[in-house]
Amino acid sequence: MSLTRCLLVKTEVKEFIKQCMLAVGTNASHASSLADVLVEGDLRGHYSHGLNRMDLYVKEIQAGICAKEGGPVVEKESVATALVNGKNLLGPAVGNYCMSLALKKAQDVGIGWVVAYGSNHYGIAGYYSMQALKKNMIGMCYTNSSPLMVPTRGKECTLGTNPISVAAPAKDGDSFELDMATSAVALGKVELSARNGCSIPEGWGCDADGLPSSDPNAVLSGGGLVPVGGSETTGGYKGYGLALMVEVFCGILAGSHYSKYIRTWRKTDSKANLGQCFVALNPEFFADGFNDRMSDLLSIHRNLESTVPEMPVMVPGDPERRHNQTCLELDGIPYSLSVVKHMNKVASTLGVTLLLPTHRLIQ
Amino acid sequence: MSLTRCLLVKTEVKEFIKQCMLAVGTNASHASSLADVLVEGDLRGHYSHGLNRMDLYVKEIQAGICAKEGGPVVEKESVATALVNGKNLLGPAVGNYCMSLALKKAQDVGIGWVVAYGSNHYGIAGYYSMQALKKNMIGMCYTNSSPLMVPTRGKECTLGTNPISVAAPAKDGDSFELDMATSAVALGKVELSARNGCSIPEGWGCDADGLPSSDPNAVLSGGGLVPVGGSETTGGYKGYGLALMVEVFCGILAGSHYSKYIRTWRKTDSKANLGQCFVALNPEFFADGFNDRMSDLLSIHRNLESTVPEMPVMVPGDPERRHNQTCLELDGIPYSLSVVKHMNKVASTLGVTLLLPTHRLIQ
Repeated sequence: MSLTRCLLVKTEVKEFIKQCMLAVGTNASHASSLADVLVEGDLRGHYSHGLNRMDLYVKEIQAGICAKEGGPVVEKESVATALVNGKNLLGPAVGNYCMSLALKKAQDVGIGWVVAYGSNHYGIAGYYSMQALKKNMIGMCYTNSSPLMVPTRGKECTLGTNPISVAAPAKDGDSFELDMATSAVALGKVELSARNGCSIPEGWGCDADGLPSSDPNAVLSGGGLVPVGGSETTGGYKGYGLALMVEVFCGILAGSHYSKYIRTWRKTDSKANLGQCFVALNPEFFADGFNDRMSDLLSIHRNLESTVPEMPVMVPGDPERRHNQTCLELDGIPYSLSVVKHMNKVASTLGVTLLLPTHRLIQ
Repeated sequence: MSLTRCLLVKTEVKEFIKQCMLAVGTNASHASSLADVLVEGDLRGHYSHGLNRMDLYVKEIQAGICAKEGGPVVEKESVATALVNGKNLLGPAVGNYCMSLALKKAQDVGIGWVVAYGSNHYGIAGYYSMQALKKNMIGMCYTNSSPLMVPTRGKECTLGTNPISVAAPAKDGDSFELDMATSAVALGKVELSARNGCSIPEGWGCDADGLPSSDPNAVLSGGGLVPVGGSETTGGYKGYGLALMVEVFCGILAGSHYSKYIRTWRKTDSKANLGQCFVALNPEFFADGFNDRMSDLLSIHRNLESTVPEMPVMVPGDPERRHNQTCLELDGIPYSLSVVKHMNKVASTLGVTLLLPTHRLIQ
């Protein structure tokens, strides 16, 4: 069997991403922030939001449609809320700023609800909501995104995969970590099936006529993802409603681009001007014993008898924790060789030291 | 064809419910509040949360497991948050109090996040989130509920249908009104199929072994509803994650009963002690032009070409608006005769004047 994957050490991938971003002129702190969130995506097993996307960020800085320097600015503020102008900076620079502001407000008055316009892709939404865990608070994060989802009964993509992310702290460092697209699946899963020549399950996407399709190519060319819930009969209108809810919290509240006005996915011909929403909620302002109840809720579910004995009942965050644990045991993050080769090609045009995948090939 | 439905006037149904609740000793204002929310459920077409449930509230007061008198009490408070003891009052008495408190806070500091413990069933969640529309604010409401849903991979009901409700104001009285159970469908739909001897679509429920089932009786006896998204392959773990999120906002934050500790559905052997969450968010504290963007977002979607020409693309709240409109045109709310007869039986034991369904029978 051919070796198609390699193990890379977390710190070397971070440094590699940082150097590529620096080479195109990105501010050092913003480059570091981006490297952190992308590698965290990979560690959690969300490879679609990791190193795999580095070239997009490089291109956006090169094309001059994403700012290299500067800082987000608060435009309106109360003790519990803020409207932030992201100044077209890299998403993580905006996201870290806003989440830290929300946490400060939640420390003082129990809640901080911060929305940003003028932002860009920020990696996994969970990276920001999980920042609340360090302060023993609940974190939430939402973003709008390029149209990829077709509403129930529709034929046209008018909504992004608009994720919902909520993190809540339990005892002893354990936590609830929901981080989900409001589409049935991520685009990456459909792309992978297309590459492998496989069909996809009904309930993932539709063709250009808005009809359910199990052909990944029909979904990718003219069709789109469907909302979680699938068809109208099985509750797809609920996923559609949730995607709209995320748009209300992001683009509509922030005054950024929204819905079909957001640029096409993978196009770097104009500014993204995404809207994002960051919330921190302090359990100290509510009933005592939050962490205990949270741990109990997780235990109730983890201890349930499973329909498939070798596949236990999990809670949101468990699959990601397992992937992280695997990386620890392997002493590295497993990457597909093709992704590493592609990013090395990008790096070589920038004069950046390449990753060395051939040192640690794995199956 | 036999006539199985009747038209009843809104005010007469409200008065009927109020009189039944007064007859068992409920405080007049609480009885009125309950009548209002139940009839609103019926007007919006959510009959499972309307007159159809009156007997449950009557039984709870009669059994002494729900308080007849008193008022909710704030136990902890900041400018933006509150923890409320619902004092085991009827849900609407707690809900109206909490939502009004959240709105007051949002008027002052942009957001109000209020959670209550010691509450009871409160009708449709949307009734509370929609109270924000009158103040041109975004409203949200969540409640936990009796276990009816089986988590992904599980065999046992550990979560309620835990609804998510978000309302947001557009221009000219138009609005976004999401009000959805996090289960694929409501229990009522499965019960109806069982009564009619029909099978149910795959993706609605599972049997006692946690396996997908299209037999409504299997779902109702030992099985359970499945989360929105259906099976694991089609993203059912997302609906499961959302139901847990609602539990975090409700039972875990409020310190009420939660998950499997909530009493069995339809049992009136102990206090419910539900946890509920009420949020108001003031667009004035964010980007100008909220209502315009909101209207535009709704228009974009309502104007999409539909896959089925006679069934237009809708936005959350449209089906309910249509039902409401039908009631206006009919000059009454259409009820199933069997529901009215059952409630009249309850009323006759209480010495309350009966509804007169036979005056206006319809098909």
